[in-house]
Amino acid sequence: MKIVIVGASGTMGSYLSTCFEKDHDVIRVGRRTEDIQVEVTSPESIETMYKKIGAFDALVCTAGPTYVGPWKNLTDQEFRQGVEGKMMGQINLVLIGQHYINPRGSFTLITGALTHEPQKNFANASAANAAVEGFVRAAAIELENGIRINAVSPNVIENSPRYFPFFPGEMPTTMKQLEYGFRKSVFGANTGHVIRLY
Amino acid sequence: MKIVIVGASGTMGSYLSTCFEKDHDVIRVGRRTEDIQVEVTSPESIETMYKKIGAFDALVCTAGPTYVGPWKNLTDQEFRQGVEGKMMGQINLVLIGQHYINPRGSFTLITGALTHEPQKNFANASAANAAVEGFVRAAAIELENGIRINAVSPNVIENSPRYFPFFPGEMPTTMKQLEYGFRKSVFGANTGHVIRLY
Repeated sequence: MKIVIVGASGTMGSYLSTCFEKDHDVIRVGRRTEDIQVEVTSPESIETMYKKIGAFDALVCTAGPTYVGPWKNLTDQEFRQGVEGKMMGQINLVLIGQHYINPRGSFTLITGALTHEPQKNFANASAANAAVEGFVRAAAIELENGIRINAVSPNVIENSPRYFPFFPGEMPTTMKQLEYGFRKSVFGANTGHVIRLY
Repeated sequence: MKIVIVGASGTMGSYLSTCFEKDHDVIRVGRRTEDIQVEVTSPESIETMYKKIGAFDALVCTAGPTYVGPWKNLTDQEFRQGVEGKMMGQINLVLIGQHYINPRGSFTLITGALTHEPQKNFANASAANAAVEGFVRAAAIELENGIRINAVSPNVIENSPRYFPFFPGEMPTTMKQLEYGFRKSVFGANTGHVIRLY
């Protein structure tokens, strides 16, 4: 299976790339490094990426920039980080990618527990995550040719301990759980699901 | 109580304005008509609106433009209608309005059943609704001075029969249910809730 992993330079993307490379043809995509580059905030850059890659079977996205910081600094401008990054970046990966993906292919996007379990400083991520989850449910009834779409929603990630202080009482999602969540979406048959890892 | 109703020209906003005017000081806000005008896609216009209104006790928003149309026409550009309108319009009403609202005031935003019950042609609304709901949960733990925030989530509205064909099998939300949903948010004590009317 030809699997495109957007965000392959990150903690989650590099881990998943290594997992899936054992049995599949993985195309690592990053913002600056990796096999192919993409700036997910730009629909033109996404289109160029897909043209370079050609037909593929699965797109996995773990790239989701958002604004993290005190509520008192939160204005329209800061909010755009998550709107353009984690939200519209991922939505555009699907709207454009549907014209390149093989029949019976799948899209798997990244959200997070903040959708339903907010934390101080992360309102931008809560909104962006929720938007992606709403989009995934809607896209599942629109995509044709057996193309599926799901979101994986982890809690704070085991391998990102610098975030632990911001998530009091939240059990970190292990890298193994993360891997299995993405496996469920990519290799399973469900569509329109939010796969909660918490 | 001084209640600001944004979207007062619309089906829901005009109904709620008439309901609440019996016992409260209602400021009707619309895009072109009404007591005061606002263009919710513009943070500057929102700021101007709040300056004209001065201190208030409750903001109710029923204004939520989104793109409705076939999935095959859905691109980044069409998606912006809901992102700038129903999503960022309402989010900016809160981010800016928190500096004008009285202590123990409340914000009540509008979402809809499409968050969890998608329909063809409405993916933009599903994403925008979900984003607002995620934001509401996060804002509830950030707002100070006892200021509350909730969302009201109706199904297709009884008084908008032209939409019925797009919502097969969905029981329309009555205007009375809508009124009570907003009453629960404005006059109750909850915060961070999505009040589902379906």
